[in-house]
Amino acid sequence: MAAHPVVEWTSEASWNMVEDKFSPYAKETLAKLIKFLEDEVFPARALIHAQVPDDPVQRWKTVIPVVEELKVKAKKQGLWNLFLSKEHYPEFGVPLTNLEYAVMAEILGRGGHFAPQAVNCSAPDTGNMEVLARYGNAEQQKKWLIPLLNGEIRSAFAMTEKHVASSDATNIRTSLVQEGNEIVINGHKWWISGAGDPRCKLHLVMGKSDPNNKSAYNQQSVVIVPADTPGIKIVRPMKVFGYDDAPEGHCEIIYDNVRVPVGNLVLGWGRGFEIIQGRLGPGRIHHCMRSIGAAQNALDTMLRRVTDPKKKTFGKYLHEHGTVIADIARSRAEIESARLLVLSAALQIDKYKAKGALKEIGIAKFVVPSMALQVVDRAIQSFGAEGVCQDQELASTWAGLRTLRIADGPDAVHIQQVGQRELKRAPALVRKEAERLRKEKALLEKAGIKTHL
Amino acid sequence: MAAHPVVEWTSEASWNMVEDKFSPYAKETLAKLIKFLEDEVFPARALIHAQVPDDPVQRWKTVIPVVEELKVKAKKQGLWNLFLSKEHYPEFGVPLTNLEYAVMAEILGRGGHFAPQAVNCSAPDTGNMEVLARYGNAEQQKKWLIPLLNGEIRSAFAMTEKHVASSDATNIRTSLVQEGNEIVINGHKWWISGAGDPRCKLHLVMGKSDPNNKSAYNQQSVVIVPADTPGIKIVRPMKVFGYDDAPEGHCEIIYDNVRVPVGNLVLGWGRGFEIIQGRLGPGRIHHCMRSIGAAQNALDTMLRRVTDPKKKTFGKYLHEHGTVIADIARSRAEIESARLLVLSAALQIDKYKAKGALKEIGIAKFVVPSMALQVVDRAIQSFGAEGVCQDQELASTWAGLRTLRIADGPDAVHIQQVGQRELKRAPALVRKEAERLRKEKALLEKAGIKTHL
Amino acid sequence: MAAHPVVEWTSEASWNMVEDKFSPYAKETLAKLIKFLEDEVFPARALIHAQVPDDPVQRWKTVIPVVEELKVKAKKQGLWNLFLSKEHYPEFGVPLTNLEYAVMAEILGRGGHFAPQAVNCSAPDTGNMEVLARYGNAEQQKKWLIPLLNGEIRSAFAMTEKHVASSDATNIRTSLVQEGNEIVINGHKWWISGAGDPRCKLHLVMGKSDPNNKSAYNQQSVVIVPADTPGIKIVRPMKVFGYDDAPEGHCEIIYDNVRVPVGNLVLGWGRGFEIIQGRLGPGRIHHCMRSIGAAQNALDTMLRRVTDPKKKTFGKYLHEHGTVIADIARSRAEIESARLLVLSAALQIDKYKAKGALKEIGIAKFVVPSMALQVVDRAIQSFGAEGVCQDQELASTWAGLRTLRIADGPDAVHIQQVGQRELKRAPALVRKEAERLRKEKALLEKAGIKTHL
Amino acid sequence: MAAHPVVEWTSEASWNMVEDKFSPYAKETLAKLIKFLEDEVFPARALIHAQVPDDPVQRWKTVIPVVEELKVKAKKQGLWNLFLSKEHYPEFGVPLTNLEYAVMAEILGRGGHFAPQAVNCSAPDTGNMEVLARYGNAEQQKKWLIPLLNGEIRSAFAMTEKHVASSDATNIRTSLVQEGNEIVINGHKWWISGAGDPRCKLHLVMGKSDPNNKSAYNQQSVVIVPADTPGIKIVRPMKVFGYDDAPEGHCEIIYDNVRVPVGNLVLGWGRGFEIIQGRLGPGRIHHCMRSIGAAQNALDTMLRRVTDPKKKTFGKYLHEHGTVIADIARSRAEIESARLLVLSAALQIDKYKAKGALKEIGIAKFVVPSMALQVVDRAIQSFGAEGVCQDQELASTWAGLRTLRIADGPDAVHIQQVGQRELKRAPALVRKEAERLRKEKALLEKAGIKTHL
Repeated sequence: MAAHPVVEWTSEASWNMVEDKFSPYAKETLAKLIKFLEDEVFPARALIHAQVPDDPVQRWKTVIPVVEELKVKAKKQGLWNLFLSKEHYPEFGVPLTNLEYAVMAEILGRGGHFAPQAVNCSAPDTGNMEVLARYGNAEQQKKWLIPLLNGEIRSAFAMTEKHVASSDATNIRTSLVQEGNEIVINGHKWWISGAGDPRCKLHLVMGKSDPNNKSAYNQQSVVIVPADTPGIKIVRPMKVFGYDDAPEGHCEIIYDNVRVPVGNLVLGWGRGFEIIQGRLGPGRIHHCMRSIGAAQNALDTMLRRVTDPKKKTFGKYLHEHGTVIADIARSRAEIESARLLVLSAALQIDKYKAKGALKEIGIAKFVVPSMALQVVDRAIQSFGAEGVCQDQELASTWAGLRTLRIADGPDAVHIQQVGQRELKRAPALVRKEAERLRKEKALLEKAGIKTHL
Repeated sequence: MAAHPVVEWTSEASWNMVEDKFSPYAKETLAKLIKFLEDEVFPARALIHAQVPDDPVQRWKTVIPVVEELKVKAKKQGLWNLFLSKEHYPEFGVPLTNLEYAVMAEILGRGGHFAPQAVNCSAPDTGNMEVLARYGNAEQQKKWLIPLLNGEIRSAFAMTEKHVASSDATNIRTSLVQEGNEIVINGHKWWISGAGDPRCKLHLVMGKSDPNNKSAYNQQSVVIVPADTPGIKIVRPMKVFGYDDAPEGHCEIIYDNVRVPVGNLVLGWGRGFEIIQGRLGPGRIHHCMRSIGAAQNALDTMLRRVTDPKKKTFGKYLHEHGTVIADIARSRAEIESARLLVLSAALQIDKYKAKGALKEIGIAKFVVPSMALQVVDRAIQSFGAEGVCQDQELASTWAGLRTLRIADGPDAVHIQQVGQRELKRAPALVRKEAERLRKEKALLEKAGIKTHL
Repeated sequence: MAAHPVVEWTSEASWNMVEDKFSPYAKETLAKLIKFLEDEVFPARALIHAQVPDDPVQRWKTVIPVVEELKVKAKKQGLWNLFLSKEHYPEFGVPLTNLEYAVMAEILGRGGHFAPQAVNCSAPDTGNMEVLARYGNAEQQKKWLIPLLNGEIRSAFAMTEKHVASSDATNIRTSLVQEGNEIVINGHKWWISGAGDPRCKLHLVMGKSDPNNKSAYNQQSVVIVPADTPGIKIVRPMKVFGYDDAPEGHCEIIYDNVRVPVGNLVLGWGRGFEIIQGRLGPGRIHHCMRSIGAAQNALDTMLRRVTDPKKKTFGKYLHEHGTVIADIARSRAEIESARLLVLSAALQIDKYKAKGALKEIGIAKFVVPSMALQVVDRAIQSFGAEGVCQDQELASTWAGLRTLRIADGPDAVHIQQVGQRELKRAPALVRKEAERLRKEKALLEKAGIKTHL
Repeated sequence: MAAHPVVEWTSEASWNMVEDKFSPYAKETLAKLIKFLEDEVFPARALIHAQVPDDPVQRWKTVIPVVEELKVKAKKQGLWNLFLSKEHYPEFGVPLTNLEYAVMAEILGRGGHFAPQAVNCSAPDTGNMEVLARYGNAEQQKKWLIPLLNGEIRSAFAMTEKHVASSDATNIRTSLVQEGNEIVINGHKWWISGAGDPRCKLHLVMGKSDPNNKSAYNQQSVVIVPADTPGIKIVRPMKVFGYDDAPEGHCEIIYDNVRVPVGNLVLGWGRGFEIIQGRLGPGRIHHCMRSIGAAQNALDTMLRRVTDPKKKTFGKYLHEHGTVIADIARSRAEIESARLLVLSAALQIDKYKAKGALKEIGIAKFVVPSMALQVVDRAIQSFGAEGVCQDQELASTWAGLRTLRIADGPDAVHIQQVGQRELKRAPALVRKEAERLRKEKALLEKAGIKTHL
């Protein structure tokens, strides 16, 4: 029997670990997805870039034609909303587990920003759809979720704030105040991804509705804000290293007395924290798998480069240098370990929900971006100057990955949390060792032996 | 349903990845093994050390009583020769896959040298039993394999040579010459593990029988040499850092006109390379899993230490220092990645034999020892001076692990081989990219766009 | 006596190592330079950025007014051409050693691209002035060197070629052919820094004039090409991680039948290699010291950030996290080591010229950029998302530093060369050890002791 | 003029940085020391080892004859007590600065434990002599200091305690109680270096004399305890990675109602902290320089190994592997950086005493051992199995260096302290940046430009 095509794009060893956990539907969908990406999406890369104009104003008004065409094709094939698990979202989802989608996310991650868009699986829409599917009421779902699920509109999630250490969400300062039937929003956000896109029609805004609540975790609420509401001022796009990521962008936004109907409140007053918690688990795993895809792509790019017969230096081809070979071996090993790690975290989510997989998610979150950055950096180095410029995807990939060491909490936060969770194993270990020492002592006494311990 | 006890000794996430690949027998044996180790083996640690005398001569003449008692108990419970897979060795083996035994090997690795001995799964006997089971003739098996399988005797594998870069086995110089019905052996070996043990009754000696053979891989043969044959001179034990590892040891040995019957030749003249190749794959995975067990043990030891209420420095308990917590989180993540990596390599062996899993084995071989050394080093640091001395197992564990970056080929060899194998993926990648570029060009042309590429 | 102001900008310990090697003039100039930078240059940063328009065409036509004003002021104070040592260039230089200028270069490196420009010490002009001062004839010096020394024009050095592994300069393919009194140039270069600048009036072009010469090092020549010569086509600016570095830029250039008078040949036919060799030594040290300045700047920025009373996460200020403090300590240590290393390389150049300091220069070249990248990366991490965007200099600094691991030869080339030079010490070491062993053996024999060695 | 012989043993570049800071006497003494080490000490290595018997009892009763002979020769040449600077100890010292001795310490570090002993510069005697020279009264000096200075006796410093996190010296629990004219000592120490040596005649014991004193830093005192005082029980030698370092050793000692005259109190009651503070600065620098010597020795050993014509693997000599060359280049660079760092710390001590050089000392303390371990580890790897055994000094060197990441405070303590000191620079940086921003704002306003900052 022929090997599944995923083997060629990821690794046989990792596939063997999970294949028996895949449904026939998932295997088939995965194969179909790969074919679609190979035939339609990956070849569109240069055209997509060409369809975004250089002009500093026009580039923000662009709906990239080829991306919209790809979306039509993908939807027709049923390659659509693959991130949304039917098990957790029976009304809207597709019959895929987190583990099954995780493998697909890796392949999607090889196609930059646009492969996930083509199959309506791109952040921040994915997390927003999850929020609306889980916490939205029927009206909110009809008005906002359905068009998002259809890929007709896009959305933003407005949480990070300027002048605030918002990796700790209790620091958030944007105010949400009810006045009559309206909620009035005032705040200064930035790094609001996707808000620059002409297709972006709503912002989910996280703010403080009850700043004096005794519990720091009940002070926040989330409201739906239509993107064209008066008072929303998009100040500027934040750049990532020199990239503006137009037309989606990561915007600085001032909400200046923005008013929405009270019906736009999601889930209820004071439940903002609950909402963002529910939003994070699987999304982080998707990010990680896409990063692994990016890393694998970089390694494959490096392999092509170092075997390029035109690149001979100091009498040797690049792939004849021992240090180049060592870099390749290390990249391969690091990608493969990280892949297995994230797949196993995805399986934990499938078994115990995100809440029961926090340690595994946390580990993936701090391990994968650094790993991927290192792999991409080696690939850059193998290209020389070409590696840092616009002719290869490596530099922009690197920049995107770099933000993942910060977004959704900097590495240090996740490292500390994983460490804290690990410390909770200590009491049981201490008990176990006490028991062992008791037995050890008995054995020594029986044998009449004295020691220094 | 209660979780399998393995979860407490390894990790839940890794167990979830492999549980459905375990037979009921394997699950049950694993549970039984863990109980035996907890009840009998781990508590015997101090007694074992106490039963090896300090005297520089006597320590080499010792058969440790408690180890022999443990062997009797283990055998009675069927916890015996678990490394030898029935599938590959139907006549002698137990019904366990490599993957199943790999998990057991990790737990065995938590008990130093002696846990594997207790269940007759310790190197170099394991590899030697594999050689005799696969390549030995009936008489050789009866005389040497059966007592080994019964744990009545032990053995050595004499390959590494002094004054020779023997990580490249073609450099071997020990001569094997047939004279009449005898084979005459002359050579100078060292680092022959286990040869110091009074229970060691045979050496498998690798030498050159046909140094002029055109193929560098057909010059070697392997012969069985009884340990008491005249002409065998054990020069001295080699020390590893300051440890002599008595009574087993790693000996320097001169074979000076040692004569054995020609019937002691294994498999046939010129087939030595074939024999050592067959010997290496699963054994490396066992080593790796034991190393992971050692690393996990070190992390658990560190967790106990840093939560010790007696250790307060500069106003803080050790576990309150951010850098300590970060070290713990990193160790946890590194162990978990490596564990999944090696388990997946074991699965590859089950699927495609060692030959079909060379890349995965190679990766495990260079990744795991360095990872484990780092984890143990962090644990040592958390103990201060106590960490480097005889009161903790950490320092001796570290020294043992350090040799694994050299034994069976130094890291650099495996890194280069993995890199070379990875390079073989390049031509397919180049073809794939050419295809993509062709499509990309067509799309650009259709859209009337020119680029710099 | 008050400490020299340099202490505040670098470190007291490094200053104490070199102070006694500074002339009174150098000390005074250094103090004057620091004052000028503090008073005039560092405060101009935001204005400089504001004076470069966003428009993708206009930004390349800009002569930044405030930079030109700064140049006038600097020149008036004698803070001008500090890189050009009088000892080596008696006619044009200033009385400063390489070591003395190295310290100045570090401080200049704290001001991004523009501080060196303000004092006419910016690459690639510096190297080009050295070439013209050393190898140019009187006419060439009058026409091109004098205006460069006066800061009236700027220049480019056209060496790197597209489609060529030009870290090995023997691979260069641009052709230089004499036709009558003209030299005809055809070639495809890229990464030609400064060629985008409207002030750039000449290119020094390296090409192959004698491709069949038996010596691979006598095939190249260098010619002066006025920037407005017909046939020069600036294709596009190469971007570095999204940055175009306008108006200077790093350009892709096609030389299409470009014709210059034969008098524009520098030094003579076939002497191109000699010219680029002479150009590299001190320039690399300048680059390194500026990189150290950039790293020190990043650490200082991080120190301000982590003590910012507004940034409190999870109940702690940033500087109260043990891992943050550890990052700071490591950055400090790494900067200080690297600084001393480069200063000592500068001193070697002063003592033995660049040729006698190749090992020290090579070490600096591969150590410093990686060190600086790491320090800047830690600073970025301390800023969260703000660290990767246009509001801090950290991201653009990082991108600039990243190219230094590639420019003037990738790290791997320098590492191999340093390793090779270090290997040359082996024979003397072998002789020395043989002598020691001879004595050791005599002592052992005298004492009647036999050993295994 | 011929280069100073130190160049051959360290590096020319570092020598050039410090040569002009050396007195003629220091240069001459350095040259004499090198000659003595080459001619007499380094060749004695094997004999020294041979003169320590294997017997577990006898090895602790040994005074190594050849070491005593070397001491006589060294003293005759004036190569004696070189660590004791006349400037700080005018009565007893030699006219050498810390910087000058630092260079000598590096060369001494190439000769293991015994080179420093040969010239009476070995720890812990050095620190003890400093204590007695600075804080001892005339009688104490006559009785203990003079014989130590003469090399007639040796000594121990008893500070570290069992069951106590004594990297924080305020945790010390040994009690010192005055009863009449006697001080009664009760405590449990370990890792007391040198206490096993038959030549060891005194212990300086740190204990708590005033446990209720409000200041945690005034509770400790130091007393001189003759090694043969009743009640001193040497429990056992602590091993370091299997090494017992006989005959000096690192002993576990119980002080059980040990009584000494009250005149044995050093400096005064409650001044123990002051004493250990004064003891640490220069000693740490000596340790660091010896470690650098050990690292340089390992690199030199590796250079000899990889150029050994007998070691050819896979068709290449070791030095032809790109990764080996890269390892060598990195080791060279790391040693050289660390050397300059420590030399500059030594200069700081000369300028400002240890108190004014705490940051530089702290940096050296955490940078050097890790660097040296890495360099030695690479050398070990180049030797294969021979690298970890008793035939090379590499493994024992590694073990000794490993303890330096713990002794005198674990790395983490020094890293935190250096970080804290570095944080103190923040307020001045904040002020400076505020000033810059003020000027920047003025410039922008004058130019009529608004920004986002």
